Amino acid sequence: MSVLVVGSVALDSVKTPFGEVEEALGGSATYASVSASFFDTVNLVAVVGEDFQEENLQLLKSFEIDLSGLEKSPGKTFRWKGYYTYDLNEAITTETCLNVFSDFNPIIPDEYKKSSYVFLANIDPELQLKVLEQIEKPEIILLDTMNFWIKNKKDALIETISKVDILVLNDAEARELTGEANLIKAASKIRSMGPGRVIIKKGEHGALMFSKCGIFSAPAYPLEEIFDPTGAGDTFAGGLIGYLSDVHGKTEEDYRRGVIFGSSMASFIVEKFSLDRLKNLTWEEVRNRYYKFKELTHFE
Amino acid sequence: MSVLVVGSVALDSVKTPFGEVEEALGGSATYASVSASFFDTVNLVAVVGEDFQEENLQLLKSFEIDLSGLEKSPGKTFRWKGYYTYDLNEAITTETCLNVFSDFNPIIPDEYKKSSYVFLANIDPELQLKVLEQIEKPEIILLDTMNFWIKNKKDALIETISKVDILVLNDAEARELTGEANLIKAASKIRSMGPGRVIIKKGEHGALMFSKCGIFSAPAYPLEEIFDPTGAGDTFAGGLIGYLSDVHGKTEEDYRRGVIFGSSMASFIVEKFSLDRLKNLTWEEVRNRYYKFKELTHFE
Repeated sequence: MSVLVVGSVALDSVKTPFGEVEEALGGSATYASVSASFFDTVNLVAVVGEDFQEENLQLLKSFEIDLSGLEKSPGKTFRWKGYYTYDLNEAITTETCLNVFSDFNPIIPDEYKKSSYVFLANIDPELQLKVLEQIEKPEIILLDTMNFWIKNKKDALIETISKVDILVLNDAEARELTGEANLIKAASKIRSMGPGRVIIKKGEHGALMFSKCGIFSAPAYPLEEIFDPTGAGDTFAGGLIGYLSDVHGKTEEDYRRGVIFGSSMASFIVEKFSLDRLKNLTWEEVRNRYYKFKELTHFE
Repeated sequence: MSVLVVGSVALDSVKTPFGEVEEALGGSATYASVSASFFDTVNLVAVVGEDFQEENLQLLKSFEIDLSGLEKSPGKTFRWKGYYTYDLNEAITTETCLNVFSDFNPIIPDEYKKSSYVFLANIDPELQLKVLEQIEKPEIILLDTMNFWIKNKKDALIETISKVDILVLNDAEARELTGEANLIKAASKIRSMGPGRVIIKKGEHGALMFSKCGIFSAPAYPLEEIFDPTGAGDTFAGGLIGYLSDVHGKTEEDYRRGVIFGSSMASFIVEKFSLDRLKNLTWEEVRNRYYKFKELTHFE
């Protein structure tokens, strides 16, 4: 199998209490693709500008990500600038330059149209819908979004949500989307909108997955230092969809393992800036962290 | 075995968004004793005033709690009044009348002095220390405290902490006590003060237990409605110490099961005011909730 990831590729300038980095490779599709590549082959659909450096292309290729869907457009690559205070839960954006991303019209290459496992990373829900229309017989569509679309394109977002299998979003977004403070009620409302499965991310408190099989409570990996949380959510989603694709996952147990593999990948990405931690990450380290999650929650 | 619980017995007037109650039976030792009584016999040491109603004594006796250490003093019973907003994580106190509790000098009856499992519920750390001096050969001392003592009696608190086996406190208290924002670092600092084991409660996000065996992450039970959170922490601690006493627990696995039983008891207490939910709670319901916790976190 292979995973199709559609989203943004960006150059991020990030400042945290522990350091800063200028124009490092980032973007929702980047993090998700690289994370998924630890589990299965990945096809990436996104857009970059003429200024996108060869070394960044080489970096993506080093993870064996197929780049035939990565469009190069006249203009500059999407740039994001932000910082975190000691409360690392929320990024404060200081500058967003969409550049080539503002005219992004995702064209799915013919050879990707039969993708079974698809991750629609956070972009305009109207574009996410356009992607869905091009996919022939997907088995699992995983959708991410953000508060900006809940506020500004709610109707399009709700239409997109109605067509996917899994929605992944954070606790504040789940509350904003549904108007329910209680996450169990919020998840029920979201499931009544279409997706059989909802995953609510709670940052340092882990994640809750809701489906007809009940609720799964996944812990976060306890870290003494979180260096840079940028991309953690996309890395989580990439690990999840990558694992599901690899095992052709369908059962509750598959999903639970996928959530833990996603959480494992996310626990690595925050250890360094950008993709730095994943450059030398081995499969053995990923597997060991999975077992650490098991030790963390196990009781008889 | 039997459990010794020392703390407060109070009459609570509580208002939540869902209702209110006047002078209902409450207090740290009450909640902890009743919760522990589901697992083992309980000896309670506390003080009440002359106005303490016979029906409240009968209620405690209905849980087969031994009341020979419940002193009746001239004066009125400790009263607490507070309310919760929709953010049910923190009580806002509007009135505290210590009454007979202000002169509480806990005298441990001779027949309790050989107690093996002891819970020192939240009271002045100097009184907790006095209790410790009267216990002959305790196996496990579990200590609770609150922000008030961290702020106002830090030295006495630290001395008391140095003499106990397990400290249980919430996340904000752990940060305040240690000056560490990161809970893993905070737990390390607390363990270096003496207790081999620290349990940090995170409300709706569950609890983390730290020991030389590593970290255990326990979820909270997902509830659609939390009616009244008063006493949840004491109910948790009572369930934990009660279970440990019952099985003569010593191993990491025993502690993990104890934390889940404590969490199970806490998930019931918040469903109604005061002890109302526990009046008709059956052992079968407790056991079933334990298995629900297992389903909630299980993955292979």
